[in-house]
Formats: sequence, structure tokens, C-alpha cells
Amino acid sequence: MVTAKVRAVDGADQPFQAMTIERRDLDTQDVLIEIKFAGICHSDIHTARGEWGPVNYPLVPGHEIAGIVTAVGSEVTKYKIGDRVGVGCMVDSCRECANCKKGEEQYCHKGNVPTYAGVDKYGQPTQGGYASHIVVTEDFVLGIPDNISLEHAAPLLCAGITTYSPLRTWNAGPGKKVAVVGLGGLGHMAVKIAHAMGSEVTVLSQSLSKKDDGLKFGADHYYATSNPETFQNLAGTFDLIINTVSAKIDIDAYISLLALDGTIVNVGAPAEPLSLNVFSLISQRRSFAGSMIGGIRETQEMLDFCAEHNIVPEIEIISADQIDEAYERVLASDVRYRFVIDTSTL
Amino acid sequence: MVTAKVRAVDGADQPFQAMTIERRDLDTQDVLIEIKFAGICHSDIHTARGEWGPVNYPLVPGHEIAGIVTAVGSEVTKYKIGDRVGVGCMVDSCRECANCKKGEEQYCHKGNVPTYAGVDKYGQPTQGGYASHIVVTEDFVLGIPDNISLEHAAPLLCAGITTYSPLRTWNAGPGKKVAVVGLGGLGHMAVKIAHAMGSEVTVLSQSLSKKDDGLKFGADHYYATSNPETFQNLAGTFDLIINTVSAKIDIDAYISLLALDGTIVNVGAPAEPLSLNVFSLISQRRSFAGSMIGGIRETQEMLDFCAEHNIVPEIEIISADQIDEAYERVLASDVRYRFVIDTSTL
Repeated sequence: MVTAKVRAVDGADQPFQAMTIERRDLDTQDVLIEIKFAGICHSDIHTARGEWGPVNYPLVPGHEIAGIVTAVGSEVTKYKIGDRVGVGCMVDSCRECANCKKGEEQYCHKGNVPTYAGVDKYGQPTQGGYASHIVVTEDFVLGIPDNISLEHAAPLLCAGITTYSPLRTWNAGPGKKVAVVGLGGLGHMAVKIAHAMGSEVTVLSQSLSKKDDGLKFGADHYYATSNPETFQNLAGTFDLIINTVSAKIDIDAYISLLALDGTIVNVGAPAEPLSLNVFSLISQRRSFAGSMIGGIRETQEMLDFCAEHNIVPEIEIISADQIDEAYERVLASDVRYRFVIDTSTL
Repeated sequence: MVTAKVRAVDGADQPFQAMTIERRDLDTQDVLIEIKFAGICHSDIHTARGEWGPVNYPLVPGHEIAGIVTAVGSEVTKYKIGDRVGVGCMVDSCRECANCKKGEEQYCHKGNVPTYAGVDKYGQPTQGGYASHIVVTEDFVLGIPDNISLEHAAPLLCAGITTYSPLRTWNAGPGKKVAVVGLGGLGHMAVKIAHAMGSEVTVLSQSLSKKDDGLKFGADHYYATSNPETFQNLAGTFDLIINTVSAKIDIDAYISLLALDGTIVNVGAPAEPLSLNVFSLISQRRSFAGSMIGGIRETQEMLDFCAEHNIVPEIEIISADQIDEAYERVLASDVRYRFVIDTSTL
């Protein structure tokens, strides 16, 4: 067993505190990772605060993990000690269902094993990446390309793949007009990736306050959704809209921005149901879809794509003592564009 | 000008009455059609009764039209006198927008010219197929294959293409599990066409009352949606669901029946917005889409496909005096499966 230093919450309304947890002994296919950096995702906040259902406390969040392999199980073939690796939102799946066999482990019919707040195949609760170490079966460990630093790699494991996967699935690329709703942690990655894929990229943000950033990240156009003219002027424009805003929005208004055969993809879900006028879909054969992270093979593809195109997230590195404050800043949209915890400060 | 005998309503709450209207003189590219049969579509009822917005009365409904060419304009090249032809839901479009140029005239950016209750390029109101004659520009006239009788061809022009188009667009075919919601005029065509395309077809109907028919039309399975077990047992099953029911349904329940990457397509729209839980889309990368008839090229393709596969609708031929009664029977779901007016009785 390896004793890991962690930051954990011991209740929905509790601040983070320094603790230790035991990581399991290495099984034959396990990799022990010394974590160097862990990104903060909005999901961490929802889960830590019990907003997505009951949680067993203490809870260690974190599913944007980058570090170094420090030990491997007897049958591990993919990684060796010293390798630079990452772990994303899941650490296992059934591997037997049709979706797992397709490499879409995120959609495992039995449910994938989430990196934290889940239960692993040993019946133990999973604990995430705000930690000094983690043990993960090698098939759910990603290799980080040489030209991506560990601190930049971390947010790619959730924010990167969550936007890369729908962009690939719905064929973003040259000749395609792609809009990204929201310029936060996910949105800014969607802009960079869609631009690198060759799409014409438009940011649809509440205000123009981040316009300079958006254009710098590769957007060709930037409009404020608080201006009703945006919806009039852009009606019927986009082949693909990636909606990174989880809050409840007027989905019909966004659907009206799609061209013939266009698709709007939600990568987050509002807590309440949306109201949708079916005629807005029928009138131009449009689709409303949802997407969740990506499979392991596709996550590796995303990392390699980012390396090839020199894409990294915009990050602000914080110490472990700043997690509570960072959470408040995420909730206030005061982050440009991802907080990453330096786990040497645990 | 040609004087056409018609059946028309002169107000939202009026019965049909025999009248005459003038059809325009043939323009150079026009075709004069002597109508032999006209199908009754649920849309006819909505429009005639003013349920879809204000209408200029008197109104002649009918957009499932089959007949014989009896005169052609000086520049007509596609048809000659004596040809067996059909007209569907639209009689013109702008022909210049991106969608028209793609052959998707139904999605014309300026709005296609509907066969009735529209305004043509001469500024005149369009009047539909419950009539002895109609004049239509040749590009919006379809050729009816030899082995399809005119009475059977009529319903293909709306019910046929409305279901064929989404089945083609979303790649129904061998290895694909397709469900059809509702076994009415559209649904029974969807079953026949999806079966002919090689899909494994399931009917989802409120009750099992039409089960024998459904299986005869080519369905492999038939389930009652009034039985909650249907939704439990079929969760995650279908690649494609064609929803022919315009009434407001529990869309989340139907989305839960889709497999990974599955799509549910509405070919009708409820008057009120639907409530939709986005998580049901995200959890298996599903899509909710809409589709409206088909383009002219695709409509001809559908007719040729039906001819090749010996597909015809199930029809009940009625006389012009029975239209009011037929409307009531459509509203009571008492039709197996399409009423077709014999226009010789006008």
C-alpha cells in the first residue's frame, strides 16, 4: 500500500483539508503514478458539494491528472517507471459490453468507474487526483507527449477530450462552421481544437469581455448572446454548435442558429429539463445531441493531436491551500481558463 | 385557363362543398395534370380547420396527388401528354438558395411553395389536390413508375417521402435496428420502407390492436407503449427511431430506447414544446432530430425504390362526398391506413 497525501472534503459544506489515504497495492496490470498536477473541473465542485447526489465523505476530487510512473505491476506492458502519464475521468469499465469493445468505455453499459466518487472492481471507493499518488490499471492510463508539460496536460484529460470528442464525432474540419457556446475551461479548449481542425470558429459568449482572448485562441468571430441581434444575424449559420454551458438556456434560440443538417451538442446537462420546440428541429433537419468525455483510445488521439498542433490550455497554477478559493472563483467565472493544483504543495 | 372541379372548405368549421376554381394558363415550363387520386393527410385537416394559423378560404387541400399529363408548356422536356405523374407537398421553391441547389427544396431558405395554402410566384394562392386538375412547373412533378397504380402512388408523395427521407438520411439498412412510433398513415409506410432497406424493424404502438398488420407490413417486433415493461425491456436498443406521432410524448422515455449514437427523428411536431432531459442524450451520445418530407430528387428516388421493392401503401378509396366523414375517421384513428379520394367523383 502507498500512503498518499491528499486534499479532501469531509462534507458538502466543508472546506478542503490535508489528509492521507491508502492507495491499493499494485495489481499485475496496475501503474503507480506520482501525481504532479491536477486540474480543477466544475464537476469537482458539484460532486464535492453533493449537488449531483449523495457522496461518501471524505472525498478527494480531481480527474485531470498528470504525473510520473513510479512503479508498475508484473504484467504491465504499456508504461515503465519514469514515463509521463495522465488519468482522466474514468479509471476502469466492464471491458466486455458492446460499447467497451468499441473503445467507447465512457458509455460502458455497466457504467464506467469514475476516477472519484465511484466504486472500483475491488469494491473500494475511488478517490481522485488532488493527491500525491494514484494507482490505475494501465489500460486507463494515457501517455503524455513529450512537448506537452505536465501542468498543461492535466486539463486536457477532461476539458480537452470533452470538446475534442464531439468535434471529431460531428466532423468539424475545413469548410465547417463551428460555434462554441461559453468561453470557460471547456469552451476555450473547444475553440483551440476546432480551429486546429480547420473549422471556421465562432464564440457565442454572454458578453464581449473575453473577445480578445477568444480571437487569440483561434476564433474567427465572437458575438455576445446578450445582444438579441446575434440570434437574428446568425440564424441558419452553423454546421455544429458545441454548448459548454450547463445552465438552462433557451435551446430553441440556439437551434435556430444551425444550418441545414446542423447539430448542437451539449457537453453538460442542466439540472432541470429543457423546453424544446420540435419545429425548430424539423424546419432544417437539425439535431440536438449530447456527448460525454471520450474513450481511452480517442483520449490518446486527442493528446497526440494537441501535441502535433501545439495546443495547450490556458492555466493558472495554484497551491493546495488555494483550492477553496479557486472553487469560489470558478463559480464566479473568474478563471482564465483552468486552475491546476501543484501537488508538490499538498 | 382550365376550370377545375374541386372540393373546398369555406371556413374552419365548414364542411366540404363542390366548387370550381381556375387553374393558371400554362407557363412555358408548366404541366397540366388531370388528377385521378388524392390522398388525405392529417396536415390537410389541421390546415383546413385553421389549426396551423390563418387560412384564406375557400381552401382546397390535398398534397398527395396522382394523375395524367394532359398538356405541357412550350419548354417542358421532362413530361409529355399521357405520362403518369404525381405532385407532393410543394410545387415550387426559390431554386437559388444553398438548400435548393443541394436538391433540398423542402428546406428552401425563402420557404418552399406549399401545394395548397401557399402563394405561388405569380402571387396567386395555391390550391391542392382535391381537384380535377392542377398546373405545376415540371421540376416539381414526379414520374410514377409503371408498376405503381395511381391510387397507390398518391400517398407516397407525402407519407412515403416523409418516412423514406429520414430512413435514408440516418442510414437505415442491414444491421440497423429501427423503431417506428405509431402505425398510422406515415408509420405503416415507415415499416414497409425500413424493412425493404434491410433493417430490423420494431413497431412501438399504443396498443397491440394493429400487431397483425404491423408484422404483415414487415415489422420483426411489435410492442405496446402503454405497457411500461416495453421501455424497460427495450432500453438502449435502437439505432434509429422514426416518431410519426405528432402528439406530445414523453420524449425522454423514447430517447432511453436508443443505443449509443442512436437518433430519434420526429417527422411531426407537437403544438406545444416538449420537455427534454439533456442527460438522456449525453449518457449514450444520442441525438434528437427533426425531418420534413424530402427534396424532389429524393422523392423520385423513393418512388423508384417503392417500385423496385413492390411497396405500396394500404389504402381505402373514398368518393368526394365522404371527405368530411373521412376526416372524422382520421381523427379517431379509424383508417387502415390512408384515405384516397377518387377524383372522378368530384
